[in-house]
Amino acid sequence: MCLRSQGIFLGAKMTADNPQPRIAFQGERGAFSEEAAKKLLGEEIQLLPCTTFEMIFDSVNSGESDYCLAPIENSLAGSIHKNYDLLLEHDLKIVGEVYLRIIHNLIALPAVPLERVKRVYSHPVALAQCQQFFRQHKELEQIATYDTAGSVKMIVEQRIDDAAAIAGLQAAKVYGAHCLLKGIEDNKENYTRFLLLSKEASVSAAANKTSIVFSTENRPGTLFRCLAAFALRDIDLTKLESRPLHGRPWEYFFYADFLGNINETNCRNALSHLGEMATYLRVLGCYPRAQYQDLEGEQ
Amino acid sequence: MCLRSQGIFLGAKMTADNPQPRIAFQGERGAFSEEAAKKLLGEEIQLLPCTTFEMIFDSVNSGESDYCLAPIENSLAGSIHKNYDLLLEHDLKIVGEVYLRIIHNLIALPAVPLERVKRVYSHPVALAQCQQFFRQHKELEQIATYDTAGSVKMIVEQRIDDAAAIAGLQAAKVYGAHCLLKGIEDNKENYTRFLLLSKEASVSAAANKTSIVFSTENRPGTLFRCLAAFALRDIDLTKLESRPLHGRPWEYFFYADFLGNINETNCRNALSHLGEMATYLRVLGCYPRAQYQDLEGEQ
Repeated sequence: MCLRSQGIFLGAKMTADNPQPRIAFQGERGAFSEEAAKKLLGEEIQLLPCTTFEMIFDSVNSGESDYCLAPIENSLAGSIHKNYDLLLEHDLKIVGEVYLRIIHNLIALPAVPLERVKRVYSHPVALAQCQQFFRQHKELEQIATYDTAGSVKMIVEQRIDDAAAIAGLQAAKVYGAHCLLKGIEDNKENYTRFLLLSKEASVSAAANKTSIVFSTENRPGTLFRCLAAFALRDIDLTKLESRPLHGRPWEYFFYADFLGNINETNCRNALSHLGEMATYLRVLGCYPRAQYQDLEGEQ
Repeated sequence: MCLRSQGIFLGAKMTADNPQPRIAFQGERGAFSEEAAKKLLGEEIQLLPCTTFEMIFDSVNSGESDYCLAPIENSLAGSIHKNYDLLLEHDLKIVGEVYLRIIHNLIALPAVPLERVKRVYSHPVALAQCQQFFRQHKELEQIATYDTAGSVKMIVEQRIDDAAAIAGLQAAKVYGAHCLLKGIEDNKENYTRFLLLSKEASVSAAANKTSIVFSTENRPGTLFRCLAAFALRDIDLTKLESRPLHGRPWEYFFYADFLGNINETNCRNALSHLGEMATYLRVLGCYPRAQYQDLEGEQ
């Protein structure tokens, strides 16, 4: 059951007169982002694949799409910093989140057996996450590309019959390719967290997680004092990420996620307290928290 | 004047019987890492170019080299997470740091004019940092490669006369190529911080900066309490970076840099206080702090 059908999911565009919201995502059709979008919003959506992360943000800004889905963090590779930077540059609101278990598969043209595969195409991060497989198959050449699903598309379109791609199952489905080996990733604890962004958002009562970005003066103890705003109120910080402040080397923006709804007195007080100390503060969104633990049973 | 010649730089191998220490770095000859190594240690060094970051760590571990130089943070692109992970996986000690201003140049074969250039090869990060240049030269195709200096090497070795590379000046010098345009980076506030690592280290009296890594229980307020160890003693934290704990999704290691020498009572107490709360704590190194401000006059 997707989160949308549970009715906990809010958004101006998600109404009866717009049964098929338009979702921009980075990558080719069949990308992990497409899987995540369907998990969050169900099958009744219009998919707008884009080449870059910038384009998915622009697509929502221009009104071409209702939402975009941006990967923000992977449990192994860490934060996707480009999207942290884009959150700051644009004025979109986080209205939801979803976790997807990343399963890497070896995908080739139908009827191509493993023995015929000489080269394997995929995104460098996907290749890096399957090194155990490559150690067992030293004969295979690893070739870095820009996209996992895009590598499957290329193999199918160009009828390359001596190569394979590493991608999600959705990519095999979309392009009519064949899965030679399932789950070849080194570490099964491989999850990506995605954020759903829209131009406007109202904060629902079901929202129980908030994302903010702030900066502080570069003096001893300033970050500590900022975190006090949460710690002194027993508010649970689930993530703290620093990003360089462009043009001011070795000063940082801090991105923080905490559990709570900005309409609760506790959280309002914490943000007001933080505002006294921060040189910059913005709420990026307040949304229903997703549970990554629910993924255990996923294929 | 390189830092080595200032005599503030310690290391077992940096003695009279070893006038030319062996330095492993990632990239081809002429890489920014090579420039940084020379800035830190002077011209009298033996350079060991390696393909990957893993290899530079292995090279020191095996005794093939005396030091390796690892880029750890760029003022625009942020932290180089692979090297944070490798610091944890290996047992090397940080014995020095250096900042290098990153200047991107358009480099081609001698006698190739700008008008003849159709494609530009470089590392994706370097391409991304020169987008203003590409907007002014929409006719140029951008091709991502694994290395800045390696792209110059390829152009020279294969005598490619209708392409250029984006790299540092050192690469043009090493391969006998020609610099068509200097300083084409979008943002001049582009610095990379490198760490010098060795197998063993004694902490000198001149050391005034310390790098540590720690993890905490996943409970509200734990990070805040850990930072208290420093804030309550007026110890200046210059960097805080979180990295995922592999196999335990959404738990983190924190890497922190602070100003101080681990032999000072104040710092010893802070580390002992942190140790009471952290589930893991390791000192990565204590070394003389480099000044990035000295770079203003650099070409």
